[in-house]
Amino acid sequence: MSGKMKALVKDKPEPGVSLQFKDIPELGPHEVLVKVKAASICGTDLHIYNWDKWAAERLQPPVIIGHEMSGYIARLGMAVRGWSEGDYVSLECHKICGLCYQCQTGKAHLCQNYTILGVDFDGCFAEYVKVSETNLWKNHPELPPQVACLQDPVGNAVLATVPVDLIGKRVLVTGCGNIGLFAIGIACALGADGVYGVDINEYRLDIARKMGASLAINPVEENMVEKVMGETGGEGVDVVVEMSGSEKRLREGFKLIKHGGQVSLLGIPQEEVSLDLAGEIIFKGVNLSGITGREIFATWYRASSLLRNTLDVSPIITHQFPLEAYREAFQVMQSGKCGKVILYP
Amino acid sequence: MSGKMKALVKDKPEPGVSLQFKDIPELGPHEVLVKVKAASICGTDLHIYNWDKWAAERLQPPVIIGHEMSGYIARLGMAVRGWSEGDYVSLECHKICGLCYQCQTGKAHLCQNYTILGVDFDGCFAEYVKVSETNLWKNHPELPPQVACLQDPVGNAVLATVPVDLIGKRVLVTGCGNIGLFAIGIACALGADGVYGVDINEYRLDIARKMGASLAINPVEENMVEKVMGETGGEGVDVVVEMSGSEKRLREGFKLIKHGGQVSLLGIPQEEVSLDLAGEIIFKGVNLSGITGREIFATWYRASSLLRNTLDVSPIITHQFPLEAYREAFQVMQSGKCGKVILYP
Amino acid sequence: MSGKMKALVKDKPEPGVSLQFKDIPELGPHEVLVKVKAASICGTDLHIYNWDKWAAERLQPPVIIGHEMSGYIARLGMAVRGWSEGDYVSLECHKICGLCYQCQTGKAHLCQNYTILGVDFDGCFAEYVKVSETNLWKNHPELPPQVACLQDPVGNAVLATVPVDLIGKRVLVTGCGNIGLFAIGIACALGADGVYGVDINEYRLDIARKMGASLAINPVEENMVEKVMGETGGEGVDVVVEMSGSEKRLREGFKLIKHGGQVSLLGIPQEEVSLDLAGEIIFKGVNLSGITGREIFATWYRASSLLRNTLDVSPIITHQFPLEAYREAFQVMQSGKCGKVILYP
Amino acid sequence: MSGKMKALVKDKPEPGVSLQFKDIPELGPHEVLVKVKAASICGTDLHIYNWDKWAAERLQPPVIIGHEMSGYIARLGMAVRGWSEGDYVSLECHKICGLCYQCQTGKAHLCQNYTILGVDFDGCFAEYVKVSETNLWKNHPELPPQVACLQDPVGNAVLATVPVDLIGKRVLVTGCGNIGLFAIGIACALGADGVYGVDINEYRLDIARKMGASLAINPVEENMVEKVMGETGGEGVDVVVEMSGSEKRLREGFKLIKHGGQVSLLGIPQEEVSLDLAGEIIFKGVNLSGITGREIFATWYRASSLLRNTLDVSPIITHQFPLEAYREAFQVMQSGKCGKVILYP
Repeated sequence: MSGKMKALVKDKPEPGVSLQFKDIPELGPHEVLVKVKAASICGTDLHIYNWDKWAAERLQPPVIIGHEMSGYIARLGMAVRGWSEGDYVSLECHKICGLCYQCQTGKAHLCQNYTILGVDFDGCFAEYVKVSETNLWKNHPELPPQVACLQDPVGNAVLATVPVDLIGKRVLVTGCGNIGLFAIGIACALGADGVYGVDINEYRLDIARKMGASLAINPVEENMVEKVMGETGGEGVDVVVEMSGSEKRLREGFKLIKHGGQVSLLGIPQEEVSLDLAGEIIFKGVNLSGITGREIFATWYRASSLLRNTLDVSPIITHQFPLEAYREAFQVMQSGKCGKVILYP
Repeated sequence: MSGKMKALVKDKPEPGVSLQFKDIPELGPHEVLVKVKAASICGTDLHIYNWDKWAAERLQPPVIIGHEMSGYIARLGMAVRGWSEGDYVSLECHKICGLCYQCQTGKAHLCQNYTILGVDFDGCFAEYVKVSETNLWKNHPELPPQVACLQDPVGNAVLATVPVDLIGKRVLVTGCGNIGLFAIGIACALGADGVYGVDINEYRLDIARKMGASLAINPVEENMVEKVMGETGGEGVDVVVEMSGSEKRLREGFKLIKHGGQVSLLGIPQEEVSLDLAGEIIFKGVNLSGITGREIFATWYRASSLLRNTLDVSPIITHQFPLEAYREAFQVMQSGKCGKVILYP
Repeated sequence: MSGKMKALVKDKPEPGVSLQFKDIPELGPHEVLVKVKAASICGTDLHIYNWDKWAAERLQPPVIIGHEMSGYIARLGMAVRGWSEGDYVSLECHKICGLCYQCQTGKAHLCQNYTILGVDFDGCFAEYVKVSETNLWKNHPELPPQVACLQDPVGNAVLATVPVDLIGKRVLVTGCGNIGLFAIGIACALGADGVYGVDINEYRLDIARKMGASLAINPVEENMVEKVMGETGGEGVDVVVEMSGSEKRLREGFKLIKHGGQVSLLGIPQEEVSLDLAGEIIFKGVNLSGITGREIFATWYRASSLLRNTLDVSPIITHQFPLEAYREAFQVMQSGKCGKVILYP
Repeated sequence: MSGKMKALVKDKPEPGVSLQFKDIPELGPHEVLVKVKAASICGTDLHIYNWDKWAAERLQPPVIIGHEMSGYIARLGMAVRGWSEGDYVSLECHKICGLCYQCQTGKAHLCQNYTILGVDFDGCFAEYVKVSETNLWKNHPELPPQVACLQDPVGNAVLATVPVDLIGKRVLVTGCGNIGLFAIGIACALGADGVYGVDINEYRLDIARKMGASLAINPVEENMVEKVMGETGGEGVDVVVEMSGSEKRLREGFKLIKHGGQVSLLGIPQEEVSLDLAGEIIFKGVNLSGITGREIFATWYRASSLLRNTLDVSPIITHQFPLEAYREAFQVMQSGKCGKVILYP
């Protein structure tokens, strides 16, 4: 298996990526080589493709991009135990230190020193990807590759929604990007009494409806606060899952949250956000949680089971391309008229 | 509304009940009179009907029996606030003291001094029932009366299953009486990765299958431990919900429980039970919870929402009778060839 | 006991209060008259005394002020059960509705419709105070009256600190008003590995040291962030308890909070606060909780036990006056050179 | 550092151990050699010394025994990162697989495949001990070696007591072996409102009193249930920490536990135990937790902090010997007239 492989490389500090032939990676004793079967494009990949401010500050080209994938183990480092060639796997994209306080106390997804596959080191938009054995997740054989690669972003949505028991709760999801759409599906699947999706993109509101949202609100055309208050008999919502990064949406979400409610923040605001802490958090006894990554691997067990048993993500998988058609794939991403876009290397 | 009403009365310390005309109750300032629309028969009612040891020790005839119901407020005590005549309600059957440690710390369902409607004072197998305003639960208008009366036993099943996040879990339900059947439906609805129902009654195993059980096991005919171990690839189960009261089932359940697993006990053993605490609880780090009643009213919110959104209990409602046909209703209960039996006063 | 009683009355919409003779209150059937033995002045009372914007908008004079107290039951409404004349009690100052979602699900301290003793109706800076029986808390006989009246504000500090297991944690308390000082003592008592008190008032920093703070920082004179980072080896803190209402302190607190840390907000900002949600909450996976009131009565059990067993509040009780010396008492409060000020009616 | 070292070896399948010269171990790439400074004798070591039924079934001589220790890193395997020679460390004695469900979901202390230092492979009653880098715990420099080695058993006591918030709780500790004694100290330190120690050994009851027990009960001489009921005004206890393995003590503990109480089981019964599940667990809504090991490393952070800040274990360290005096040390252990016995290799 020495030889070359196709790979999407961010090779210059400018917009775009290029398809190149790169050496298939050599393995250290505790590393594993995985043949990529399917990979999905994350919003992060689009930031890198577009070479925005965050990307320019974080990446050091050349880097093979991509971190959401499924595939088969092709080769094992000589000290790897418990895995076999041919195992069907996906990858946790956070490489953790294992030594910090967070790693040692069950919060490794909040590791102080983590690095990310396809951002800080070579990723999975390629024929092969090399990872540490500790990042391997064994896929259930029932999950097809284009669904198995979604366990990573579904995991973000799981971590943002399941800390709270959702049975009988009203759940507002502000922002219907893919993670927001997964969150809508999860909340519906887990017994919420009403799930309200909000986005300014009508294409995505359509998918929100297909995922089970009882309301799909375009806040440009409707007053989101009035609409949700009407639907809930003036009581507001128990849970806000903020996936838009918009200050406006978040502030409206706080107007809707009940006393004792839960707000989960995952959408990244570009600027600081001004909040009425007294009126909206303190006197209401609200709890606000920052969400990043997914628990390793508690969240993966949940994501895998949801995808097999309860959560039908077919409305979200809107586009599939061979790796070579990457330009078209990223154009679709840029248009916003898509759900999840899958690449097949 | 002074006058007489039909009521099923345990009037003598012996098996059976009689249909009598009784005075419609007078109200204290904080009490409410409810017109009963539908009522369901609980296993407790059958114990009382059969006049078993427990019943003979606990009840002091004459008592109108029955505690699961739905209906409409007919009259309000003069100090009642927040309720109106005609409100569609069900009743929490535990009358709590409000003053003990448990009542004052959010565990009123474990009140040290509680008494029970239809056991310790007159119940709801009647045209009217009188309760304290603090026992009223406002029904959602979408729930038909024969479903609304099930919120009480569904609540038991909720309390036994939802303390644990069920997503991706394997759940064993030993005992497919009605509460066990509800628990099967709830575990399926909330994302369990496998739900295994066990009973010696084939009629109820059929209902278990309809409620979504991935396995329905008759332990007289099959080896329950082997069967579940086979289904779970030798890993066993994450959760055992014990609804049978059988020492044998519980001991087998402990053989199947994983390290770190959860066992919820609701079925009442008639005798002491001998357990291998070292091997099955301590070294495995298992958690065991005794379950009684339902949280007032946190569980009711969950039960109501589940019944409206996720949990289809129609396979469990197998028989419906007018109150006058109570003899036939109790015969069906005694036969064991039934799920839930509804009475209409 | 008909007759008159001394009472501190906010009788006009302007600064100050007056000592008046008022009628001893009549009781409804579920109400109780309590003879006040000791009462303590809360920051809220000072707002009312000073007649600031909040007070002017909320209060409708005339109102007897004060809500922190201890005393003895003097008379019982005719329907009161479970209490006796002479019982030694304190009062939960939040009068709850009992019917809203929060009241019915174990979060009555977040009741949507609560009113407050001494703010919305007559309070306890008087010889007698009338309350609903459901607001009574039975004091432990070992607590002297001037300590028993502190259970209310100690409860705020308990609710702000104990949601997290504090063993081995580094805890930053920004704002050493009385609730902050209690929080310092509680964190020390419950096994924190370092407790850092911050205030611009040197008098209160002295008390913070007496309560066990390992650092007492005046941010006007020292760089709080550098100081705490130095003390913690650059790791920062696990818990921030924000008691100052200062945007500056809160923003510095977020710089110090670890990944996965807990921020409790109790201090009331006068304006909106601008926060870097992405950098300080989302990527760090921080949890932020708004704190108001105290759990009824789970927090009271904890506060009572802490005051008897572990928490010595004598450094905080700096001044004690007869009710008649109320002007002097409020002058001390206005000077800021005090901890808790006790009044004896 | 090639050469020989002194070591206590269980070399034959019979009672006793022998002091031998053994080769200093060779290291794999991810292993570390630790120079032992202090080691403490666990009840498990006594079982091995006495060669009881459990030991005879589990151990395969020759094995160097011992698993509680503190010392300094003497040499590092060539792939070890994040550690240095001279680091002051203790060891987690459970060697986990890292691959099972429990290891992957934050419950590695319940690993299905763990092995134990000094039981399944060579331990620390020796001049040097070899371990995997993942078992290293960095000691706080303030902890002296004879205290640092106690973090392992203190950790057991922490895991058995801190799942519940102890503030204001009544805690019964049945069995005043060393872990029970630590549990008494921890419960007192964390705000319990009464801690009741029970043992038939007067020597240990004396230590229980020194650790802060408000009652120290010898159940041979006093009726434990009556005594505790008297002390608690007939209410019983909130928490039972069972450390004796005695069926009698456990059954009495269940008589004392309140509705909604918590029972933690750590003491190992030699036989099955018969329990009244209906009366003592189900109707009371009691929670029962099996306790084994300690969380890796969340519990270690807590144990370290408690030993530095709050928990004075000097009354428990009753005997200290050089390794060569091991016979005397085990005789003291067998006599029962001791707390913790320390060995210095």
